Amino acid sequence: MKRVLSGIQPTGEIHIGNWLGAIVNYVELGRKLGREALYCIVDYHAMTNPLAYEKELLAQRTFEAALVNIAAGLDPEKVTLFVQSHVPEHTELSWVFTNITPVGDLQRMTQYKDKAAKLESVGAGLLMYPVLQAADILIYKADTVPVGEDQIQHLELSREIARRFNTLFGETFPEPTAYLNPDAPRVPGIDGKAKMSKSTGNTIGLLEDPQSVWEKIRLLPDDPARIRLADPGDPERSVVFKFLPYFAPKEMVEVLKEEHRRAGIGTLAIKQILFDQYMKATRPIRERAEWLRQNPEYVLDGLEDGARRARQIAQATMQEVREKIGLLRLEAKRQRDRV
Amino acid sequence: MKRVLSGIQPTGEIHIGNWLGAIVNYVELGRKLGREALYCIVDYHAMTNPLAYEKELLAQRTFEAALVNIAAGLDPEKVTLFVQSHVPEHTELSWVFTNITPVGDLQRMTQYKDKAAKLESVGAGLLMYPVLQAADILIYKADTVPVGEDQIQHLELSREIARRFNTLFGETFPEPTAYLNPDAPRVPGIDGKAKMSKSTGNTIGLLEDPQSVWEKIRLLPDDPARIRLADPGDPERSVVFKFLPYFAPKEMVEVLKEEHRRAGIGTLAIKQILFDQYMKATRPIRERAEWLRQNPEYVLDGLEDGARRARQIAQATMQEVREKIGLLRLEAKRQRDRV
Repeated sequence: MKRVLSGIQPTGEIHIGNWLGAIVNYVELGRKLGREALYCIVDYHAMTNPLAYEKELLAQRTFEAALVNIAAGLDPEKVTLFVQSHVPEHTELSWVFTNITPVGDLQRMTQYKDKAAKLESVGAGLLMYPVLQAADILIYKADTVPVGEDQIQHLELSREIARRFNTLFGETFPEPTAYLNPDAPRVPGIDGKAKMSKSTGNTIGLLEDPQSVWEKIRLLPDDPARIRLADPGDPERSVVFKFLPYFAPKEMVEVLKEEHRRAGIGTLAIKQILFDQYMKATRPIRERAEWLRQNPEYVLDGLEDGARRARQIAQATMQEVREKIGLLRLEAKRQRDRV
Repeated sequence: MKRVLSGIQPTGEIHIGNWLGAIVNYVELGRKLGREALYCIVDYHAMTNPLAYEKELLAQRTFEAALVNIAAGLDPEKVTLFVQSHVPEHTELSWVFTNITPVGDLQRMTQYKDKAAKLESVGAGLLMYPVLQAADILIYKADTVPVGEDQIQHLELSREIARRFNTLFGETFPEPTAYLNPDAPRVPGIDGKAKMSKSTGNTIGLLEDPQSVWEKIRLLPDDPARIRLADPGDPERSVVFKFLPYFAPKEMVEVLKEEHRRAGIGTLAIKQILFDQYMKATRPIRERAEWLRQNPEYVLDGLEDGARRARQIAQATMQEVREKIGLLRLEAKRQRDRV
């Protein structure tokens, strides 16, 4: 069976950009691509970034990431949802790949250069990050990886590592290809800027407190030319209309745009509609999240079961790798000695 | 219990320099230092050197390294003899350490610079080698490591990694100290050069075929001033006398030196004596090696038992590390949720 692997950052603070841009698609991804779907919460990757990693928060964030993703629709009985560090074979394969990856290739990675430039002392984790990422993917022989534009270069490195391993040790790994979802929206920030992102601080949290969500929606920048209610507006210049299509039916959006243009409705009223529609769209997720918070066992059982299934695949791959790279395997040697 | 860890290169071709310089001391090391002794055949390290690693030979070399060391006196029932890749926790801890090790520190390692200078494409394994080495040592919380001069810098890095981890995550690891054996001889090569070493090709193998050993001893460079049997010789300038003290009783050596000086005995006859003494000293090892070759199960059982014991320690350390760096541990979370 072919497999698709998605990496999930261990953060409980999932915003609607993550949700609409990735999670919504994750839910259907495996079925859509006709592949077994694995979702890996990459806690060992989190350690590579000294600016983001906090040891007091990592376990809770990892748990929250699982909880939010399950609440948003990832069914741990249908897909394999697991935590990276629960399958330590990732780090073992990463060591094998480290040996066939030129230092120079890693130093040339754009993300490494960008992140390293901001740090006084650069940890080797930042340099080795894409090698562990290659192991995350290839240990499941995943041939498809949904990634954002910013991960294309790392995925190309994974492909090279797969090729190099196959050349040196015999055909073992598929070359994974990027799956850039054509339907994935690039959700703007609440400041109207290009992209909602945690680092810019322009997000609305998927499970954020309603009062706080309303405050953010209320303050969405309006068309600066529309000062009085009676002024006609340009929907293209009012940020509320950038969000509305994600949550309101198309017809409703068209009617509201028309009303906005001819000064038939105030922007605040439209924002109230956006808030209502947003709350309506996210209510099932909020309810499931609340239920999961009362029943953490469900999340933990899901992760335990996911790790068990992931390890079965990972261990089989590592057995094959150990044989191919020529490590001494006691059972194999015993069998050969008997013959 | 305090522990001492020794790394053993996975090569079956152990020469008498290895034997006299390291293995002889290994046998008594734990007892002498009052420590539990672990001996790790570092097969995952072997992969870092593209000039030395051959996938077709690694398993056999690993097995031979175990066999020769057992033959030379390492009793797998008294010490923990195991293969690095049989305890994959080494690579997991190595990943954790990777994140707290500056890239710059690794690039400054003398061995890395020397080896990298000889290669067209430098694999990242060469750069990361000392981090895996730190994990080899610290996963057993070993406080003592017998090393050669050339490994002092790497051990200093292990100490820094231990310190840094302790500072960031709480007291966990001892700072391992080098054990430079004052009694370890620096065995010269058969060319009379400073050091017997595989890379120079001036070795006598511990289990080498007697005929081949005799050829090498027969050709040891003589005092160039002693041309005829009747010429007096200078024992200091005849390489045979550099080896004789390792294998012959002190009195015999003194008598032979005196005879050599006064032209009472030919160098060839002294070489014959060296050969006889050498064969006598290594006979028990040769016999045990032959027996082990007939009974490979004994070696494999020893390695299996060693890996089991090593893993117990390694797993306990990794549990502690996972907790301290803040990874989500399902059982721990379940227990906290219950309270």
